[in-house]
Amino acid sequence: MEQIFSKLNFLTNGEGLTDITDDLNLFIQKSNFHSGIFSLTLLHTSCSLTINENADPNVLKDLENFMKSIVPYNCYESLSKDRETVYYEHSQEGEDDMPAHIKTALNNTNLSLSFQKGKIVLGTWQAIYLWEHRFNPKERSISVHIIGEKSSSSYNNE
Amino acid sequence: MEQIFSKLNFLTNGEGLTDITDDLNLFIQKSNFHSGIFSLTLLHTSCSLTINENADPNVLKDLENFMKSIVPYNCYESLSKDRETVYYEHSQEGEDDMPAHIKTALNNTNLSLSFQKGKIVLGTWQAIYLWEHRFNPKERSISVHIIGEKSSSSYNNE
Amino acid sequence: MEQIFSKLNFLTNGEGLTDITDDLNLFIQKSNFHSGIFSLTLLHTSCSLTINENADPNVLKDLENFMKSIVPYNCYESLSKDRETVYYEHSQEGEDDMPAHIKTALNNTNLSLSFQKGKIVLGTWQAIYLWEHRFNPKERSISVHIIGEKSSSSYNNE
Repeated sequence: MEQIFSKLNFLTNGEGLTDITDDLNLFIQKSNFHSGIFSLTLLHTSCSLTINENADPNVLKDLENFMKSIVPYNCYESLSKDRETVYYEHSQEGEDDMPAHIKTALNNTNLSLSFQKGKIVLGTWQAIYLWEHRFNPKERSISVHIIGEKSSSSYNNE
Repeated sequence: MEQIFSKLNFLTNGEGLTDITDDLNLFIQKSNFHSGIFSLTLLHTSCSLTINENADPNVLKDLENFMKSIVPYNCYESLSKDRETVYYEHSQEGEDDMPAHIKTALNNTNLSLSFQKGKIVLGTWQAIYLWEHRFNPKERSISVHIIGEKSSSSYNNE
Repeated sequence: MEQIFSKLNFLTNGEGLTDITDDLNLFIQKSNFHSGIFSLTLLHTSCSLTINENADPNVLKDLENFMKSIVPYNCYESLSKDRETVYYEHSQEGEDDMPAHIKTALNNTNLSLSFQKGKIVLGTWQAIYLWEHRFNPKERSISVHIIGEKSSSSYNNE
């Protein structure tokens, strides 16, 4: 067993989900590891990592709509009987600031994936997404860490 | 340190939570590993993995009710001030289709557990559940992956 | 690669978030590991682990408010069109009992972190929180498990 640490950077398009599965697999293959654990930590608190459907773009649209509806900008209504309106106290960076932190808390910052033959083990319909919760495009970094076994012969990295 | 990869299949009963703790422990014991990391990836996007209370069945009923209330079928109301009604665009497989993807995003697909003496480290009141979010019973697969140390002598697997 | 298992205990202040990042880093340094995976399992079902913003205390206040608003005590309103009121069936330990289990399900019990040079890999604005969902202060235990490489020379543990 050996380990390797690195960092991958992604430029998001503002609010929405970006499929990063291929980039993650490429990193594994370039690192020349065959099989092991691939641990991801997204180094931010206003975007998240999620695994979801990879086929119909409407799934991503519905996911995005749901998150926006349950964590609205500016203020939201409580689900308690009195339906009080709650305002965010933290809003230094704008109306998308605090909702982004909440969406992150409802989702994941940290994934510990398995890989075999240089490829993350996923179901047929699964992809790994970087989910941007801020309005504007941002550069986002993921700490990547492999513990596993190296390939006896190199992969082609073209 | 050694590693092993496999897949476990479960038949769910349709919507609801199935306790899979014993099956997971049995896999560890049969694999003859003593201690290490047990990494689970549920290979689907309409069911999830969760750790919760193992004693009162009403906890599971309340969890299920909550998820259904916050991610209703067909459409839902926003928590923003105007309380707009939002419809799902993705509904090819029926009214339980998109809500299942959202429930999965709010829960986990991926767990990285620790085990010692052939048993997952959990609190007294914890169990690991496979949470089916579709109406009908489905066969669900979990990718299982161990990195750890083997037992010097075999466990009894009766 | 070597591994070590232990347990860390924390006394919470009742509802709210406690930053445990320094305690976790201290454990790594005392264990004399240099780099590897740091796997955490919170051994309870009414509190959770989360990674979020470490700078403005209002972020934690807003997170807490949001969770309370979306998972109210006693009963809550559904987001479906009829807005039915839903009551919890599980309430043996009081009105904060079942909401605590639901908040835990919406958050994390299990994190698999990376560490280098004896320190968890996190972004500048990230901290790891133990999130208590019960009213009263509680003693909470986290199972901690390291797989990694030991330092060639000891850290100073003062």
